[in-house]
Amino acid sequence: MSDSKEEIMDATFKALCKHGYADLSIQKIADESDKGKSLIYYHFDDKGDLMLSFLDFLMEKADFEYENDSPEARIDGILDKALGIESEEQWEFQKAFQELRVQAQHNEKFQEKFQEADRIFLENVSEIMSEAGAENSEVAAEIFLSMIEGSISRKVASGDREGLKELKEDMKDTISAFLDDQCCSFSDSG
Amino acid sequence: MSDSKEEIMDATFKALCKHGYADLSIQKIADESDKGKSLIYYHFDDKGDLMLSFLDFLMEKADFEYENDSPEARIDGILDKALGIESEEQWEFQKAFQELRVQAQHNEKFQEKFQEADRIFLENVSEIMSEAGAENSEVAAEIFLSMIEGSISRKVASGDREGLKELKEDMKDTISAFLDDQCCSFSDSG
Repeated sequence: MSDSKEEIMDATFKALCKHGYADLSIQKIADESDKGKSLIYYHFDDKGDLMLSFLDFLMEKADFEYENDSPEARIDGILDKALGIESEEQWEFQKAFQELRVQAQHNEKFQEKFQEADRIFLENVSEIMSEAGAENSEVAAEIFLSMIEGSISRKVASGDREGLKELKEDMKDTISAFLDDQCCSFSDSG
Repeated sequence: MSDSKEEIMDATFKALCKHGYADLSIQKIADESDKGKSLIYYHFDDKGDLMLSFLDFLMEKADFEYENDSPEARIDGILDKALGIESEEQWEFQKAFQELRVQAQHNEKFQEKFQEADRIFLENVSEIMSEAGAENSEVAAEIFLSMIEGSISRKVASGDREGLKELKEDMKDTISAFLDDQCCSFSDSG
């Protein structure tokens, strides 16, 4: 990504946090940057085109690396990254993600991107769950992803960042218990 | 609620489903009703005021009755209602709810309503989990609610209504397993 595109993405992030998707405009994005509206229109056709690139930008930042660790360590790593709430910036990032997710209802291109991200995540987590000995690893992955997504969505809606931090530990315990119930190898492999 | 207010709520629901929150206007709501804009402005100050009443309207529809059944039957009942996806209308209702939830980031009154709904739900479910013998019933309720909310949010974003129906059964199994892990009384009491 070029420097000016990167700068536009940063400005979009700031404007989205400040105004929300419904009130976002190219003008408000330009207001968050040194560059003007004309530079934004040089790179993007309209707000829709810009937001699609911004979704890619967010998804790239959220991308996981599935290291070659034990299943337990990898699940821990995913939770830490997905619920990454140590910094104010990461919390704002979660909020922006929620804004874009809901647009998928009305925007086919957004929907395709969320479908694809979901598919990749499920595939990877399903593999980890299978290695951990889960009976039905696909179901385990679906439930795991729902739990993460729902925790973020609820706590963002209620503005409860501290609550999300607490939930992180509870979720780790729950997933261990779930896998313990399905198999015996998980708690031994950690 | 008066007949004309009820009619405005129905029109708001239709307009929200069709256009999404970001593109919603009083004019578009009036277009979905026999009554004109002036009647809407007679009842509501502006779009914000109307949407707050609409959130109440949706939440009332989503309200649970916690019957005096066994814990397992009550949890089943909650899942059936929360994931009620048998009709097209209920699916549209889920989508509308997601739209409003994300507005809570930018609207304190919305946020308060979601906090309150969350609190009541957690209190009730925590009581059920406790009766079912869960060690930490508050954590169980948090996880349960996250799982429901995340499943809806993910499947709405990917437009996968059939997937949500499938997930419903998987969630029932998961919660049984979770409670089995915490206690022995749940599977016996069902």
